[in-house]
Amino acid sequence: MKNQKLKVNGIRLRKSLEAFAEFGRTKQNGVTRLALTEEDRMARDYFRFCCEEIGLTVSVDDMGNMYGLLAGSQAQPPVVVGSHLDSVKKGGRFDGVLGVAAGLEVIRTLVENNITPEIPVIVMNVTNEEGARFEPSMMASGVLSGKFNKEEMFAKKDADGVTFQEALQKIGYEGNKQNRLTEASAFLELHIEQGPILEKEQLSIGVVECVLGMVCYEIEVTGESDHAGTTPMSMRSDAFFAAVDLIKETREKLAALDDELVYTIGRVNVLPNIHTVIPNKVIFSLEARHKSMAVVRKAEKAIQSIAASSLKSRCSVTAKKLWERNTVWFEKSLCNALETSAASLGYSNKRMVSGAGHDAQFLASFIPSAMVFVPSVNGKSHNEAELTLWEDCEKGVNVLLETVMALVCSKK
Amino acid sequence: MKNQKLKVNGIRLRKSLEAFAEFGRTKQNGVTRLALTEEDRMARDYFRFCCEEIGLTVSVDDMGNMYGLLAGSQAQPPVVVGSHLDSVKKGGRFDGVLGVAAGLEVIRTLVENNITPEIPVIVMNVTNEEGARFEPSMMASGVLSGKFNKEEMFAKKDADGVTFQEALQKIGYEGNKQNRLTEASAFLELHIEQGPILEKEQLSIGVVECVLGMVCYEIEVTGESDHAGTTPMSMRSDAFFAAVDLIKETREKLAALDDELVYTIGRVNVLPNIHTVIPNKVIFSLEARHKSMAVVRKAEKAIQSIAASSLKSRCSVTAKKLWERNTVWFEKSLCNALETSAASLGYSNKRMVSGAGHDAQFLASFIPSAMVFVPSVNGKSHNEAELTLWEDCEKGVNVLLETVMALVCSKK
Repeated sequence: MKNQKLKVNGIRLRKSLEAFAEFGRTKQNGVTRLALTEEDRMARDYFRFCCEEIGLTVSVDDMGNMYGLLAGSQAQPPVVVGSHLDSVKKGGRFDGVLGVAAGLEVIRTLVENNITPEIPVIVMNVTNEEGARFEPSMMASGVLSGKFNKEEMFAKKDADGVTFQEALQKIGYEGNKQNRLTEASAFLELHIEQGPILEKEQLSIGVVECVLGMVCYEIEVTGESDHAGTTPMSMRSDAFFAAVDLIKETREKLAALDDELVYTIGRVNVLPNIHTVIPNKVIFSLEARHKSMAVVRKAEKAIQSIAASSLKSRCSVTAKKLWERNTVWFEKSLCNALETSAASLGYSNKRMVSGAGHDAQFLASFIPSAMVFVPSVNGKSHNEAELTLWEDCEKGVNVLLETVMALVCSKK
Repeated sequence: MKNQKLKVNGIRLRKSLEAFAEFGRTKQNGVTRLALTEEDRMARDYFRFCCEEIGLTVSVDDMGNMYGLLAGSQAQPPVVVGSHLDSVKKGGRFDGVLGVAAGLEVIRTLVENNITPEIPVIVMNVTNEEGARFEPSMMASGVLSGKFNKEEMFAKKDADGVTFQEALQKIGYEGNKQNRLTEASAFLELHIEQGPILEKEQLSIGVVECVLGMVCYEIEVTGESDHAGTTPMSMRSDAFFAAVDLIKETREKLAALDDELVYTIGRVNVLPNIHTVIPNKVIFSLEARHKSMAVVRKAEKAIQSIAASSLKSRCSVTAKKLWERNTVWFEKSLCNALETSAASLGYSNKRMVSGAGHDAQFLASFIPSAMVFVPSVNGKSHNEAELTLWEDCEKGVNVLLETVMALVCSKK
């Protein structure tokens, strides 16, 4: 009876995504919908409207997280499907919003088929995942999971000096602490991959086993500024050339550790940055990520050893850890359920890891959680060119539907 | 009779330098005296006062260059001693002003000893050598030598939109084109070395044979921005890692060319410069200087070959020449005369090159020219810590005095 499986409405899903994309739409067909802005408020209002339209009970907690509840026949902790509606500046139309629209579409499909689940189902919009206006990212899921302090988060200011709390109140979304999600049977987040793997391997579905552990360091190389024309090479303490040597050496060490290790120098500042002056300082970030914390620790050793390298020549070098996170492993039974669903739908799939952070990684500390990835065209995200094909979005939501039904409805 | 040589007055020289250092003095004992500012006007007024005090005839040309003339007994082209009174922002108390104070002190010494030269002697203040307020540097000597167009230079604007001509008129130093220096028997410029060589070798005097030829390139490496956590190493087009490889390779080529070649990457900009994003662009300057243009051309070839390197991996690379200058060789007979003077005074000395640009390099195109360097403590210049010991300043001026006397007075 495989061909009679319940499926979501792909056209409705697409219209839903297109509707959300209007809130903060940019000229290049992207989205700027920073957390707690007027654009975010409009998207939230629309989300609330969609929930109420299909009979869900909407509640908002003190962090502005929104919940649309489809009641179940039994008093059990809910299955929650969700993600976030906020975006980065000039971001795309899929990152975050796909997971919210997916939750809506799953529940719409249940409702229109008159399926009353045994276990309640919630579609959730998590506040300020991106941290693009108010740092840190994953702020609200961090508060729910006890990683962040609510008062500290409320006091965070944007570039204009507006606090998070002021912004939350201004758009009318400071709700009640009692509405917080405190327990659930499962949290499922559908998200775009934001990487090239699924597309490259021509797969439709990624079952995410973990969010990679990582360390992020700041390396500072200090030399001496001298005139570029008057200082012989042998008398220089060139911070940039020293940095180049140190980076080359460290990269070789990191490359030798493990094929799956990813490491990046994304931020590099050279001082005084004048073409006729030998640089006296280079400050750069160096981060490394891997699912095995043992490998992350080896990478960290390699990064730390930069300060003692013989290649620093006449410069001094410091390596300061900015932060780290341990690998977050998702619930095995949920990963298995997602994989089973994908297979039963005939969708090509693989187990994979998430190199990026997501709300699910914080919620996983108190809720059994898992994630589904769908392909990102050219691996792009966080920019206006971000794209996931409609049919891939639909497949991802079908996997969620199949999995949610398995969780909330008794096997007949 | 060596011990009866005429010498300058070291204490008066020091007082003169200290007086000039008051115009634009900074808290850290440096000087900010940008061209044609009120500070520059005060220094110019004081220079005029000093010239007139010892009976010199002061004239100003249309570029604001100032000339203090000590008449000679014969109608011959003058011997000119000079440099510039302007400084960079937070510059030092010696760069430029030393060469002007030296000219004053040489003439003061002649006057107080009742020496009437056969050939006229001029002390000159050249306008806007630094180019710190109005680019380009060496603007006025460039106009005198026909390298730059006067009208274009007059239209140059500072950061506030004020034109060079407006600023020149405002401080009252737009003089007459007829006063321009058009011919001279010699131009002699005493300057701080701005490098570490004389100090390192414990020498007092550098006889400058040339200003180094150079090329300056801008290299642009273009890759692809992707998420630092989600993109496997093998699928990246990391512009920064490619740049590091290319720089390493190019440095090795340059290092193999000639021990005296100097090369610098002073300016490096990485985009988008976010620690979680793989850089898609790195733009950096790469300049190389050497006295032999043949070596400069070899360096240029090495720099150009960066665009075709196999190490650029998945990135594209362009190399654009920003500018170049040919080596300017100073007048041999003047170099010999300076060397002879230094030796006759018992000062340790060596022939050397100038890696930095100076007005003398432009004036050399139509006036026999040469330069004298005195040691820079720690090789520092263009900052408030710039220092040349008073006794070294004095020695430099004595070399000028000895040389000027040899040029303007008949051997008895």
